Amino acid sequence: MVTPVENIEHLEIEHLEVGFDIPARPGMKEADIQTPCLVLDLDALERNIAKMGAYIKAHGMRHRLHGKMHKSVDIALLQMEMGGACGVCCQKVSEAEVFARGGISDVLISNQVRDPHKIDRLASLPKLGARTIVCVDALENIDELSEAARAHETEIECLVEVDCGAGRCGVSTPQEVLILAKAINKAYGLKFSGLQAYQGSMQHLPAYADRKAKIDAAVLLVKDCLALLDEEGLGCDIVGGGGTGSYYFESTSGVYNELQCGSYAFMDADYGRILDEDGKRIDEDEWENALFLLTSVMSHVKADRAIVDAGLKVQSVDSGLPVVYGRDDVTYLECSDEHGTIADPDGVLKINEKLRLVPGHCDPTCNIHDYYVGVRKGVVECLWPVSARGKAY
Amino acid sequence: MVTPVENIEHLEIEHLEVGFDIPARPGMKEADIQTPCLVLDLDALERNIAKMGAYIKAHGMRHRLHGKMHKSVDIALLQMEMGGACGVCCQKVSEAEVFARGGISDVLISNQVRDPHKIDRLASLPKLGARTIVCVDALENIDELSEAARAHETEIECLVEVDCGAGRCGVSTPQEVLILAKAINKAYGLKFSGLQAYQGSMQHLPAYADRKAKIDAAVLLVKDCLALLDEEGLGCDIVGGGGTGSYYFESTSGVYNELQCGSYAFMDADYGRILDEDGKRIDEDEWENALFLLTSVMSHVKADRAIVDAGLKVQSVDSGLPVVYGRDDVTYLECSDEHGTIADPDGVLKINEKLRLVPGHCDPTCNIHDYYVGVRKGVVECLWPVSARGKAY
Repeated sequence: MVTPVENIEHLEIEHLEVGFDIPARPGMKEADIQTPCLVLDLDALERNIAKMGAYIKAHGMRHRLHGKMHKSVDIALLQMEMGGACGVCCQKVSEAEVFARGGISDVLISNQVRDPHKIDRLASLPKLGARTIVCVDALENIDELSEAARAHETEIECLVEVDCGAGRCGVSTPQEVLILAKAINKAYGLKFSGLQAYQGSMQHLPAYADRKAKIDAAVLLVKDCLALLDEEGLGCDIVGGGGTGSYYFESTSGVYNELQCGSYAFMDADYGRILDEDGKRIDEDEWENALFLLTSVMSHVKADRAIVDAGLKVQSVDSGLPVVYGRDDVTYLECSDEHGTIADPDGVLKINEKLRLVPGHCDPTCNIHDYYVGVRKGVVECLWPVSARGKAY
Repeated sequence: MVTPVENIEHLEIEHLEVGFDIPARPGMKEADIQTPCLVLDLDALERNIAKMGAYIKAHGMRHRLHGKMHKSVDIALLQMEMGGACGVCCQKVSEAEVFARGGISDVLISNQVRDPHKIDRLASLPKLGARTIVCVDALENIDELSEAARAHETEIECLVEVDCGAGRCGVSTPQEVLILAKAINKAYGLKFSGLQAYQGSMQHLPAYADRKAKIDAAVLLVKDCLALLDEEGLGCDIVGGGGTGSYYFESTSGVYNELQCGSYAFMDADYGRILDEDGKRIDEDEWENALFLLTSVMSHVKADRAIVDAGLKVQSVDSGLPVVYGRDDVTYLECSDEHGTIADPDGVLKINEKLRLVPGHCDPTCNIHDYYVGVRKGVVECLWPVSARGKAY
């Protein structure tokens, strides 16, 4: 069930059974992969990673890849090596532990940590060799974090989280930011390292201009915060935010210096529908679909309906149904626990035929699976564990 | 990541870390459980199981519990020991392997198996000591299954699946049923054992009369099938179907002999809203909420909004948002990847306060988690692995 996270280099799959423990082994043909499972088009993934890396470098920014999207140490390392990313951000302490144990030495938890046990684990993260950064939006939390840092004799860096439109965590005014920043710097074992200012609620707005308007407002607020901090002599090592739907705004804002993009690497059906500046879908013009939910036809009694083996147990439909990739002739119609119903008006699908589905929403879909099957030119090249799968604590 | 399924008796948790690998240890207070995680009220669970067991016994039926709901060997064994269930049904070969390896000796895969590798694994299931039953809706599948049974020198029992309204797998006429049944009995290594006639699409209709009308139609079709089979001298050991929203119809139909209820043991918010014969919600009048998604408040900057740590990564919202159990004063408003937003109009929630959420839909929610934390009288009594979590092959 659960074992300590493997060192990926030494993941031993010899004793694992295809079709029970794992969906495929390196060397297998794509046609023999056991479905349903997640498949990565490695060429597309690498092109996405290289493209984002080049963009961010050209704009003089850092990229702190959002590891919560894929929860994979292997892919995070690829984004650092091939895409020049400086580190990882993630949302939970247990996730951060996975990345730190996997050898990533710069980890931000872009979220609040309030539970005493979690705070204790957080404070011991630097002992794994990782720079440890966390977000703060309440004074009491500063005391809690400081006490734990003292107990472990470690340093925790803190970003003040600014609610710049997402409406969840974070404070909303420069004055509140200043109070928290000062308190952090006074607290034993803590260091004020900047601002977390991610506008999460606009990333999926379809129109470019609507997204721009939301980020413009966020940038104004961040500017005000930075000005007030500057008056008090408080510098920000990190001003972080940005996602796949907005990174071009933050990177040219003059105030952000770290981007936190995640979904660009995989794409999904919901993100793919948003439009770029030219009014084109970003999955046509900007990012390739690299993540697929591979499924097989397993019943076709009705002439115009095929039943596939990918239902709610292997994907999250919170952002809509999956899309059948590269096929205009068939449509994913309905999702039940274990089945997908495919409209097949011309009756073209055959039993055991495989379809590549683009999941509606990549993050919660990836979190259901144990492995990514990396495929290149029709052959399985690698099997990557979803290293932090289920790490929700 | 993945290890062969543990023998539950010997699940060793000593080396597992609370807050990383596991949410709790037996003996801990409920207040110290690491969230978000699944919690079972063991008293409620046992009452549900005993109640269904008594009902089914009183009606002279067998109960083949639907293991796909909880994917837990421990709970399946409890349903057999305490509730008198005769065996398990599940949906995938890999799930069936988990139950068979866990010591359950009568396993039905209430689904089609068409992939050659899966068929090979299915045919070897009897070697684990399990009676192995599978559903069939196509002639070609009978040849495939027979060939595998011959290769493994095993017997596979087959139910012909009747589509009695769900609109997915299964044949729709008595004539088609007869053709398949005869072919099964002629095939080497196979045995015709009856009918699978589950009306899946009506279980969640709110009104009792609407559900009854759908099952009445299903019963008529099943009766016709049985009559035609009888004419040809073909008896049915199993006539299976029924769910939490319909079992009282099948059990008094005179044609079904096996029920396949699952959700009654846990309940969820969506099922809870359906009405019984007296117009009362079934989660008030019939089944207790035994399954909860335990969550903690981790940010509360806005006076009237609390942020909890249970978002899309720990639940499926396909059937609606979760409901805060036992609280009229707060409401789960919005679900994002890692967060839930709770309306807290009176500002009563405190940081780290725990809430019990009733998930919208139990099956795909349970499949995300590694463990159930069994709680009785405020103390953790057991930690049960979600034994077949992620077994989608």
